[in-house]
Amino acid sequence: MNDVAARILHRLSKAGDFLSGEVLCREFCITRSAVWKHIQLLRNEGYHVEALTGRGYRLTSLTGRPVEAEVAPFLTVRRFGRSILYHEVTASTNMLAKSLASDGLPEGCVVVADAQTGGRGRMGRTWVSPSGVNLYFSLILRPGVPSIRVPQLTLLVAAAIHQALNSVVPGIAPLVKWPNDILINGRKVCGVLCEMQSEPDFTNFVVVGIGINVNQSEIPPELQDRATSIFLETGRLVSRPELLASFLNHFEPLYDAWLLEEDLGFILPYLERYSLLQSKQVTIDQLKRTISGTVSGIARGGELMLDGADGQTILISSGEADLQKRTL
Amino acid sequence: MNDVAARILHRLSKAGDFLSGEVLCREFCITRSAVWKHIQLLRNEGYHVEALTGRGYRLTSLTGRPVEAEVAPFLTVRRFGRSILYHEVTASTNMLAKSLASDGLPEGCVVVADAQTGGRGRMGRTWVSPSGVNLYFSLILRPGVPSIRVPQLTLLVAAAIHQALNSVVPGIAPLVKWPNDILINGRKVCGVLCEMQSEPDFTNFVVVGIGINVNQSEIPPELQDRATSIFLETGRLVSRPELLASFLNHFEPLYDAWLLEEDLGFILPYLERYSLLQSKQVTIDQLKRTISGTVSGIARGGELMLDGADGQTILISSGEADLQKRTL
Repeated sequence: MNDVAARILHRLSKAGDFLSGEVLCREFCITRSAVWKHIQLLRNEGYHVEALTGRGYRLTSLTGRPVEAEVAPFLTVRRFGRSILYHEVTASTNMLAKSLASDGLPEGCVVVADAQTGGRGRMGRTWVSPSGVNLYFSLILRPGVPSIRVPQLTLLVAAAIHQALNSVVPGIAPLVKWPNDILINGRKVCGVLCEMQSEPDFTNFVVVGIGINVNQSEIPPELQDRATSIFLETGRLVSRPELLASFLNHFEPLYDAWLLEEDLGFILPYLERYSLLQSKQVTIDQLKRTISGTVSGIARGGELMLDGADGQTILISSGEADLQKRTL
Repeated sequence: MNDVAARILHRLSKAGDFLSGEVLCREFCITRSAVWKHIQLLRNEGYHVEALTGRGYRLTSLTGRPVEAEVAPFLTVRRFGRSILYHEVTASTNMLAKSLASDGLPEGCVVVADAQTGGRGRMGRTWVSPSGVNLYFSLILRPGVPSIRVPQLTLLVAAAIHQALNSVVPGIAPLVKWPNDILINGRKVCGVLCEMQSEPDFTNFVVVGIGINVNQSEIPPELQDRATSIFLETGRLVSRPELLASFLNHFEPLYDAWLLEEDLGFILPYLERYSLLQSKQVTIDQLKRTISGTVSGIARGGELMLDGADGQTILISSGEADLQKRTL
């Protein structure tokens, strides 16, 4: 879509009612026939634009795709999401965003895709990414902090997603599963994959990749015990542009606060309140060993605090946490 | 240089004496005129190859450039440096190596340049990189460890450089300045810049960038109080291929040990023994604050241990350390 068409779409969307061709001509400094051409472009993109002689143009429905023109009306923050690069399909939004960040794309830009052919979760795992129903996007950050602070971002992002879900879909009671998943009723609805390029003292960029199962109506049988979607849990279709904007609206202020702080201390009460693992017996699968214990909290550095059988508390900075069966 | 020419060079270099054309024909399965053509290629590349009727060919001098064929004879390790990509000039070997690592270049490959037009140190600082005299190279690693362990690599690399300098240039008494420089007589002779691309749990790749002032005979006036070269300190010209190989020979076993360990514990006694800052009064310049104290050691995680005026020991994980004037 060209820039004028996107701005006309945005204008019609905000108006919510008929706007005369004359008004559009004046606001965008174009001729009536140019207005008509841009309206045709919007219709070709799937937008329903009603045209009535004497009244002008009215947008009757959006496409629901997470494109810039549809996300912008919901945005209340100034930096994040003001530039959104949309692709019908890409291998992985994180791969694309890393490449664009290497080329200098600034902080706050979002890469979003309607479908991914090679979506990935942590440790190279597959993230199933069907077309047209879910959110797959990557946000570019340039925090400039020492690299050891960056893993804290995963939990900060999880907190913002948790807030966005509560705000857009009240009553669904999501929980954060340390370190990077959001679950509803014990099944995963969202995953976060942060990747960074950094020196020890300085982080060049972080790509925050987020997949949210939004309106997906079927989950492959082999994943049904572990994965779900907002639609499957609530029976409600959710606006993907609104949910994306809501995440950005919640995350930007959290991120700004975190940059001024030393650690996650300021958000720990929130994270512990909505932590799936809090006070649970868990087993942590690390690459080299397995550790069991009771989760007593989250440390300021983002580590999971685990009380072992010997009464000692240890800090776990990475690994996969599994609830022990008897406590499920 | 083509592969056969490189192997002939290697063979002549190992022989150290005349090899008959017949032997070379047989070993490389090529004709006498092909041998002659490859010898001409080597001569065009700057190698001095003597040809004597009835005796054959003898290599009388190497170019001294850090190319694979000249490094290989000094290598004793199996993985690191077995593939060396040499460029006459590049912007920055780290930039090139990051790009190649993104494309899948495996662990152990080395990118080396005879000159850099945009050499960088930590925090984006310039690294002066004149042509033909020094070593500028980047080693690709794929450690697969959690990202918080990666900053430890800088000190591990510094230890290996320290060992290589002692081995190739006995008696120069280098010291490691936490976290990433090597100094001789109080002036910098080498800098290390590790950059990584990682997820929190998994490091995709690390590029270890190393600049060593080897045979540089003039230092720009504005740097003379801070920088030096091996030649300026000892009056000796050092073989760059040998020094590069010696670093790889020392680093590979240290790296393998580190992968099996949890931290730097196994190398701490060495690092503390040759630490410029040990027991010194220092001021640490971090981005947001300045901290002063007496250095009491290096922690297992690679942090500098600083005893403050209040008797508390704090761990410094990043920042620039300056010796306080009265203790210089």
